[in-house]
Amino acid sequence: MRKSLNQIIDEIVESYDNHEIITKIDYESQPSRKIINEIVYKLQKIIFPGFFEEKNLKREYIKYYVGELCEDVEYNLTKQIVKAYRCCFEYQNMPDKQVKEQAENVTAQFMSTLPKIREYLDTDVQAAYEGDPAAYGMDEIICSYPGIFAIMTSRIAHELYCLNVPLVPRIMTEHAHNKTGIDIHPGASIGKYFFIDHGTGIVIGETTVIGEHVKIYQGVTLGGLSTSGGQNLKGTKRHPNIEDYVTIYSGASILGGDTTIGSGTVIGGNAFVTHSVSANTKVTVKNPELKFRQEG
Amino acid sequence: MRKSLNQIIDEIVESYDNHEIITKIDYESQPSRKIINEIVYKLQKIIFPGFFEEKNLKREYIKYYVGELCEDVEYNLTKQIVKAYRCCFEYQNMPDKQVKEQAENVTAQFMSTLPKIREYLDTDVQAAYEGDPAAYGMDEIICSYPGIFAIMTSRIAHELYCLNVPLVPRIMTEHAHNKTGIDIHPGASIGKYFFIDHGTGIVIGETTVIGEHVKIYQGVTLGGLSTSGGQNLKGTKRHPNIEDYVTIYSGASILGGDTTIGSGTVIGGNAFVTHSVSANTKVTVKNPELKFRQEG
Amino acid sequence: MRKSLNQIIDEIVESYDNHEIITKIDYESQPSRKIINEIVYKLQKIIFPGFFEEKNLKREYIKYYVGELCEDVEYNLTKQIVKAYRCCFEYQNMPDKQVKEQAENVTAQFMSTLPKIREYLDTDVQAAYEGDPAAYGMDEIICSYPGIFAIMTSRIAHELYCLNVPLVPRIMTEHAHNKTGIDIHPGASIGKYFFIDHGTGIVIGETTVIGEHVKIYQGVTLGGLSTSGGQNLKGTKRHPNIEDYVTIYSGASILGGDTTIGSGTVIGGNAFVTHSVSANTKVTVKNPELKFRQEG
Repeated sequence: MRKSLNQIIDEIVESYDNHEIITKIDYESQPSRKIINEIVYKLQKIIFPGFFEEKNLKREYIKYYVGELCEDVEYNLTKQIVKAYRCCFEYQNMPDKQVKEQAENVTAQFMSTLPKIREYLDTDVQAAYEGDPAAYGMDEIICSYPGIFAIMTSRIAHELYCLNVPLVPRIMTEHAHNKTGIDIHPGASIGKYFFIDHGTGIVIGETTVIGEHVKIYQGVTLGGLSTSGGQNLKGTKRHPNIEDYVTIYSGASILGGDTTIGSGTVIGGNAFVTHSVSANTKVTVKNPELKFRQEG
Repeated sequence: MRKSLNQIIDEIVESYDNHEIITKIDYESQPSRKIINEIVYKLQKIIFPGFFEEKNLKREYIKYYVGELCEDVEYNLTKQIVKAYRCCFEYQNMPDKQVKEQAENVTAQFMSTLPKIREYLDTDVQAAYEGDPAAYGMDEIICSYPGIFAIMTSRIAHELYCLNVPLVPRIMTEHAHNKTGIDIHPGASIGKYFFIDHGTGIVIGETTVIGEHVKIYQGVTLGGLSTSGGQNLKGTKRHPNIEDYVTIYSGASILGGDTTIGSGTVIGGNAFVTHSVSANTKVTVKNPELKFRQEG
Repeated sequence: MRKSLNQIIDEIVESYDNHEIITKIDYESQPSRKIINEIVYKLQKIIFPGFFEEKNLKREYIKYYVGELCEDVEYNLTKQIVKAYRCCFEYQNMPDKQVKEQAENVTAQFMSTLPKIREYLDTDVQAAYEGDPAAYGMDEIICSYPGIFAIMTSRIAHELYCLNVPLVPRIMTEHAHNKTGIDIHPGASIGKYFFIDHGTGIVIGETTVIGEHVKIYQGVTLGGLSTSGGQNLKGTKRHPNIEDYVTIYSGASILGGDTTIGSGTVIGGNAFVTHSVSANTKVTVKNPELKFRQEG
């Protein structure tokens, strides 16, 4: 005989007394992934005006358009940051008023980085156009390239990460990871003219530092050497430095916090690199030998 | 001269007389991917109460909240399972009443596994926290880690797979695959404390068996040795066994139904393993040799 | 003291005078990704009638159903193509009426390829069923396999690409890339009975030509040899030819416009191929040597 729905519901409710780490009852509500993702799309409209609209933007009225979007982002982002602070042990005893004030300050500081973010993304679009023979124009890149969406999200999230906002930046980058298969931790620091082609499978770790004019292809990992230390490794420099004008072809792994790839160096596809490489070096891989057997 | 729309429509309608495998006219309607995906998100709210809400959940009223969600899931899941049965040859001649009853039984059996699924996911969140130095807290893991979403979906789908529900479990796991790049077949059996980091490109085949405290990184394949047998291989054990406390680093492939990775073993990045490995072994890869050529 | 929102808005608006490539003010509005993606889902309903419906389709009324969908697609696609032309330098001086007429012609030509697209997709579903022992039926493949969605989108986009439609085809394939992790450029030409298993991480470049009965697994790249030429390489044949009955296992890379894989050939997992391979050859990889060290 099968259980009744009432019985099942009772058992589920009972299970809420255990497993407290996955149970949030009588808590402040969580930051909302949905609202945070909407904030990213509103920022996209501010950063690339006219590209993600149904309507034609007129310069005459542009200030109303941007003003309304900015006000909306400011309001919602402040609220989400308050909720994120409330999830953190450090803020448990801070009075509501002070938490709200800090969230407002941080939001304003973040918003004032938007012109700089635009400046960087302009260079990223140029780098994509120059680097990709399959690109038919800047519009195509802005509207459709997953790399641009991932880089934009990562530049936004990195600013919030630098302002010590918990939870929100990682929710943003994981949304971009979901959409694009490109996993950039908000902690990673990335210079101008960054180009990601195809992108699926790319992983860029928290303490990675990337210079200018760097190109990265699908399946590249900029990661840690070993993770067996788990939480003990928190805060240590675990991921590599990539200097200016480096190109890293598909499937390559570059691992370790002491690993620096010198400027102008090219890392070949599938290379597995765990030590530093000096500048202007061409690293090629003696790829695994192939055996050919004629059939039939 | 171009064809008129009427002419084009006639030709399309005509083509519905051919290609019958891709044409479902005068059939029972299909299970709905949209409704099935919504069921997964409702189950997520039941499993992680308070994490995916706009509002603050109060313990006093928790039973109404869960009760309403459970009733909704029961109603919709039963309907989708009926539709899925109706797509199957085996159920073609079963009377409506009997199909409905079986769907109701299976749904109730599935729903009563939810406390167990919660128990397992609690351990998965712990494993993610302990395993990842970039994790800032349990909340971040639950709200943003793609691995947790993929594992949750796979634990849900696996219960339905074990109850012989057609179509529905695969639709669930392929939705998670779409979102996360992690492709876990509903047939795979997975122990407690399972941790997936980054995750994009992971493939875990139908007959894989995974023990407890296993860690897997991006790009790992737990797959079949050869698929040239096609449908003739159905039902055979084609995928590996991974015992307790095994770690498999990024890009490794472990293939074959006779392949067992013994407990405590660590498989290095990019390893290609087609035979069993005994317990407590460290498998490292002599990675392809690199050649360095100074330029300029 | 923090900046006021007004000050921040002023600075953002000011930044719209720079960075013109990422700023579209006083321009025709862009093609809409949202509407273009909806067109793909409507085409999916036309191509696979009855599979993506809540309701049961009746043959008696099928013409109304398809007719309405076709009319909707025709209207919206024409509008999006007009917008896409308007983004292009070549069409800058063409009168509105002529642009509209050309968009109407192209849309009609595209729509009349739908029966052929159905014919091809029928063979793709068969190939998936025959090739995958984990497939439980054609319905499961059509409703849930990411490979089928990616192939369908690529067959649609390829027809538009061949009609020289700018922007729209790439937006379509990048949406499929987002959903599935499978990145097929609209320029790639693909024969019947094409099967993609798992699929995450696959990249198929613009000038690739694929024959019939080809199978490709996750992480395969059919790419260019070097991209350092950037825009100078546009229009050249940069990607390989894959002849009939070729199978390419996971993680393999096949690179270069002069590379042809002969019919009946099997390329092993992780192979890195930059030269042509003759027909009926089994290419296996001497995978990197493993070292085993017993612990404790």
